[in-house]
This record gives sequence, structure tokens and C-alpha cells, in this order.
Amino acid sequence: MAVEVPGFLAAGIACGIKPSGKPDLALIVSDRPAAAAAVFTTSQFPGAPVVVSRRHIRRGVARGVVVNSGISNVANGALGLANAREMTSLAARAIGARASEIQVSSTGVIGRPLPMDKLRVGIPRAAAQLSPRGLERAARAILTTDNHPKLVHVRGRGYSLAGLAKGAGMIMPNMATMLAYIVTDLAVEPGFLRAALRDAVEPTFNSLTIDGQTSTSDTVLVLANGAAGNRPVSAGSARGKEFAKALLETSRELCYRLARDGEGVTRLATVAVAGARGDADADRVARSVANSALVKTALFGADPNWGRIVQAIGAAGVRVRPAEVGVRIGGVQMLRGGEPAGGAAGLRRAERAMKKREVAIEISLGRGPGRARMLTTDFSYEYVRVNADYTT
Amino acid sequence: MAVEVPGFLAAGIACGIKPSGKPDLALIVSDRPAAAAAVFTTSQFPGAPVVVSRRHIRRGVARGVVVNSGISNVANGALGLANAREMTSLAARAIGARASEIQVSSTGVIGRPLPMDKLRVGIPRAAAQLSPRGLERAARAILTTDNHPKLVHVRGRGYSLAGLAKGAGMIMPNMATMLAYIVTDLAVEPGFLRAALRDAVEPTFNSLTIDGQTSTSDTVLVLANGAAGNRPVSAGSARGKEFAKALLETSRELCYRLARDGEGVTRLATVAVAGARGDADADRVARSVANSALVKTALFGADPNWGRIVQAIGAAGVRVRPAEVGVRIGGVQMLRGGEPAGGAAGLRRAERAMKKREVAIEISLGRGPGRARMLTTDFSYEYVRVNADYTT
Repeated sequence: MAVEVPGFLAAGIACGIKPSGKPDLALIVSDRPAAAAAVFTTSQFPGAPVVVSRRHIRRGVARGVVVNSGISNVANGALGLANAREMTSLAARAIGARASEIQVSSTGVIGRPLPMDKLRVGIPRAAAQLSPRGLERAARAILTTDNHPKLVHVRGRGYSLAGLAKGAGMIMPNMATMLAYIVTDLAVEPGFLRAALRDAVEPTFNSLTIDGQTSTSDTVLVLANGAAGNRPVSAGSARGKEFAKALLETSRELCYRLARDGEGVTRLATVAVAGARGDADADRVARSVANSALVKTALFGADPNWGRIVQAIGAAGVRVRPAEVGVRIGGVQMLRGGEPAGGAAGLRRAERAMKKREVAIEISLGRGPGRARMLTTDFSYEYVRVNADYTT
Repeated sequence: MAVEVPGFLAAGIACGIKPSGKPDLALIVSDRPAAAAAVFTTSQFPGAPVVVSRRHIRRGVARGVVVNSGISNVANGALGLANAREMTSLAARAIGARASEIQVSSTGVIGRPLPMDKLRVGIPRAAAQLSPRGLERAARAILTTDNHPKLVHVRGRGYSLAGLAKGAGMIMPNMATMLAYIVTDLAVEPGFLRAALRDAVEPTFNSLTIDGQTSTSDTVLVLANGAAGNRPVSAGSARGKEFAKALLETSRELCYRLARDGEGVTRLATVAVAGARGDADADRVARSVANSALVKTALFGADPNWGRIVQAIGAAGVRVRPAEVGVRIGGVQMLRGGEPAGGAAGLRRAERAMKKREVAIEISLGRGPGRARMLTTDFSYEYVRVNADYTT
């Protein structure tokens, strides 16, 4: 059954940016102004679409988003900004909105100008194909080297929510760009929408690492258009909690799909840290382990190599007492009180756990209540191949 | 001609720690107390030898260092500390010194206790083989997965200096342990020795990255025994400057050899950053680029992919103005004022430069006088193989 969210229309077409002829232009539109919130890359070298979208979202309202894949719009100077703005104008004109109500993303090769001639024809053509059942086609048109489209649909009481995403990880040919768009027909009070998005992004999109790289174009956008006819949901209400949970679950599911479809990924791992002095310390330790090339190659080799985990804990820049540190792999205690535990039998059990598609790494620091959790992937030959064999 | 430094004796033997039967125990000894300085890992989970050596070097004097390879002495709790201490006692007894005058290192597999029975026999046996020409054998005995020993010899006016090193990079099976020992017969004032070592380590050992990992056992030790008969060299003197330069050159040469012998390394790159607001900002940008898996795989594939460099600059956590950023690869300007430069001809020239064994990446930020420089390596299939195929 097609994924539909009342009041939202979408389209995905091939407008000739990708030499392969695959879909490369997506449009997602609300039939009325929607409350809008977004989180963008922290890069100091953001792409022009991020600069323009940041400005457009200030009022907390949007009618939709236009996305092209195949060519990114980064490091193109004033021309890049003009082109990103023109994309929003083209989409606005085609759907009868103001340019400032349109968000924009571009993902793909860096350092070439966008082929505006193709977009000037393509955007009106995409608008002509807008359909309530178009989200699947939009989910395909935003992909670069992803193997599969990622589209999640959640039904709430009297409303629904859909999320689509691309990327994350070493996206060929240039960049680890992660784009995600979530739409709901629920009416949501704009301030609460922003807060709920921030809360949902932190433990999901911001806790996913494939190669430790931050793209120039990362974007998570949520649109809530109120087609469900409810009174705007606000913080603290039962409905608000339900919506926040649905947003979190959608984000989490998109992240799992992004991780599973990461370049060359054969295995996932969750890195859970407890017992840090605070959550910030726990987060640094979790990131150090989740980003460690040594841990990630061990994951690929299904090697319960807790020495590498210890190394990454020690390198996190967080004060730890080695004698309090514990490490479990797949539920098997490998290190307790800073010393090896479990013996040969434990090692064999951990080896079996490492062979599964998903591995749990648990770290206890014994210093306080701080917790954090990251989702990471292994590091394979294929990852090197995809990222080395491309030539500009 | 054998490398000799007056007053220093060394040995390298196989004492049975490595199953392969390769040399695994080294001893480097001064025939008199030497001024000593060392820089150790910043890991919060340091190995027991680092804990013991840190304590022993406080007085700034040492007679020598004992090093085993094959098994590291990390995460072994109180037993690990006792074993590291016993190694210094065994070496001290064998050469007629105090245990506190002995430095100690262990490198190899993490999480097994040291085979003290083998070391109790091996250390006296190594001491019996101490020879002025033993530095080459010592340089072999400290290796783990290195392909080649690294021994550098520099002659000054009336003195000489030798340095030996192992590792750096994803050293199988567990850890990126970098060990370096530098000995000179020059008499050097201890405070100046410490300062000169710090100054030499910063732009060399601390500016080399193979996989961004910090080992639990990294150590750089320098011993200056005064066998040259000079008055102790102090800061500011002509002799002091000459010595500091020799120490820096030795460190730099050891780093090049470490990088070239890094696991799976096919190509080196220097990342030079200029125009940052300060040196600390420049250092963060240089590290972000030098550690980027995207940049390192592009280096392996000889791909002049400046978009990945831009991505890593943006992700460094340093405020930059994209419109001021410039990037050169192999001397060819690829980005100027935040926009592509050089055209198709430039790209072809940069591609040729990328195919060489060593590539210069230059980044200008246009914001101030801050500078930094890192030495990095590419990221190859072989790197994944070596680190995935090991099983505990």
C-alpha cells in the first residue's frame, strides 16, 4: 500500500543531472503552509542550499522542499547561492508559494555548478507530477550511492507520519551527506515542533556514525501541516508526548536503515556507555569507540578484540579510572575492574556474538550517572573500494 | 658500518615471547647515569610500563630501558604493575643499577599477563650480550608488525645521536603503539633536554597520524650520557641549538620511516595549514584533514578530490570563512576564495601529483598567522585486511 500523509504531495523524476538517467529531482509539498523545523550540518563550510534553507526556515513555516541529487551545491560561491535561491523560486512558482516557504537540498559531486537549465525544466515538470502517493518516488530521487530507498510510515491516533532519508556514510563520490525529511498531517505548535525535532535528532541522527565525517549538506527537516484538523499539539500534553515518541521512532528507524545501507557495511554495533561522570563524558567515550578504525575493522573481522575498545576509551580525552572500567561484547563480560574477565569460554561466546548482524558493545566506567549510546558500522574492503576507486 | 654512540650498549634477543621465535626483547644501556626525558601517551588507560616509567623518570636520570615486544602489559591490574616493576629490577640487577634508573616498555597483544618466567631468564641473557654495536639488534627486537627496523644515526661536532623506533599505525594485533628511543653521548642539562624533547616531539611524533588512534603505550625516550666529555649543553647556547636541531631531525626522520612502514601504506601526504587565527586552530584543521577516512581513501585512489578536503575543513570545529579558503594539491591550486580553480588542466596536473609516493596538501584559511603541519598516510585494502583478519 502506498505511503500517504494527508495534505502532502510528492514527486520524484529524472531531470538529467545524473549521467545514469536515474531519478535525481524530488519535490515534497504541503497543500497548505506547514509548521517547519530543521537541523542542519554543523560544518563551517556548509553548502549553499543549507545557507538558503537556514534563512528560509526562520519563520517556522514552509510549504515544501526541493531536492536534487547527482551534483551538490558546495564551494560554488555567489553563483551557488544564486542557484540555490533560484531552485526555491522555481519550486515556489510551480506550486503557488513564496520562495521563502521552500526548503532546498542538493547532494552529490562537489565543485561543479548546478545545471540550472535542467532544473528550470525539471522543477515545473516534477510539480506537474505531484501526487499523494509520490513519497516513494521522492525517496528514490534523493539517493546517491544508497542501495535502497528508505521510507518509514507511522500511524498515530488520527494522524500519520512519514519519513524518508538518504545517505549517511561515505557516499560516493564525494561526501557523507545525510538528508532526511519527515512529514505529518498533525498540527503542531512551531516551538514544540523545533524542540521535539532536537530531542529526536540527538539520540538518532546525531548518534549515528559510519565514518566520523560531517557533510557540508546534512539536513533533517520536519513539516507538520495540520491536515488532521486537530488543535496544534503543544509540549507537555499527552498528544505532544505521543507525537514526540513517533518522531523519535521514525528517526531511529531511518537511522537503522541508513546504517544498514552504509557503504560496504556488513555489520552494525551499538555502543552504550554508562557510569560516566556526566552524559557529555559518556558521549565522548561512545564516539571515540564508535569512530575507532581499529574497533570498526575488528567488527568487520568478527574479532572480540576488547583491547581495541580499551584503547579507544583511553583516547577519548575523558578522565577514567582503569580499575573501574568494564566492557561487555554481545552481553559477555570481557573486562571487569580493568582486568580481563570471562576466560577462554567467554572469548568463544563473544566471538559467536560478533558474527551476528548486530553487536552490542557495553562500557561501564563506574564514575557516575552519565550515559550515552551510538550506532556504528563496520569498516570493510568494500568501503575502501567505493571511496578509492572513484576518480573525479 | 654499525651504528654506535659512545657509552651506549644495546642488545636484542629472542626470549620466547613471540611464537614466531623472532627477537622480542631489547635492552639499551648507558655505561653511566644519563640525563633522561620522555613523553608518554595521553591515554587515560595507560599500560603498566608507562605508569612505572613515568614514576622512574621524575628525577631526570636513567641508566637504560628494557623493552619487550609480542605481549603488551595493559589492563593487567596490580599484577601488570608488579610485572613492569620486576622488569626494571631484573634489568637493573643485570647491569648494576637501581630499578628506578630503568625505563620499561611492552608492546603487542593486550590482555595477557607477561610471561615473567621467560623475562627472568631473558633479561640477564640480553644483558650478557650488550654491545656497542647492539643498537641494530635492539631496533629489530622492539618491532611488532613493522616490516623494517627503523634506526637513524646523526653525527654532530664531537658527538653523535642515534634513534630507533617501532610502530605507529594499526599495529597488529591490537594497537597502534609507537615507541622511540634516542640516545646521545652529548652531555645535556636535564631541564633543557626535557624542553628540547617536547619541542622535537610536537612537530614530528605528535604530528604524525596513520589512523587517528592513540595507543595505551606510546613512548618517546631520550638519554644523553655525556660520554662526549663536553660541559652540559644548555638552552640558548649555539651547541644547544645544534643539539635541538639534531633531535628534531632524528625525530622527523623516524616519523617518515614509521609512516612509510605503516600497515598497508602506499602513499604519504603532508597537510600544511596556513592562515588560521592561531596555531591551535590550524592544528585542528590539519588533524581533521589528515585523519579523514574520505581524504585517506582518496589518497589511496590517487583522486585529487578537493571536495573531501573542504568537507574535512568544515568539520574541524574551527570557524572559517568559506570565501577565503584555498586548497592546493601537489602545488596545483584546486580551490581559491572558496571556489573551484584550475579547471580541467589543473585537475589533470593534480591527478599526476596524486600518483606520487608523497603528496603535498596545502590549505590556506586567510584569517591570520596560524600554521600547522601533519604527516599522514593513505587508507588501503591492506589496512583493513591486517586489522580485520586477526582473531584473538
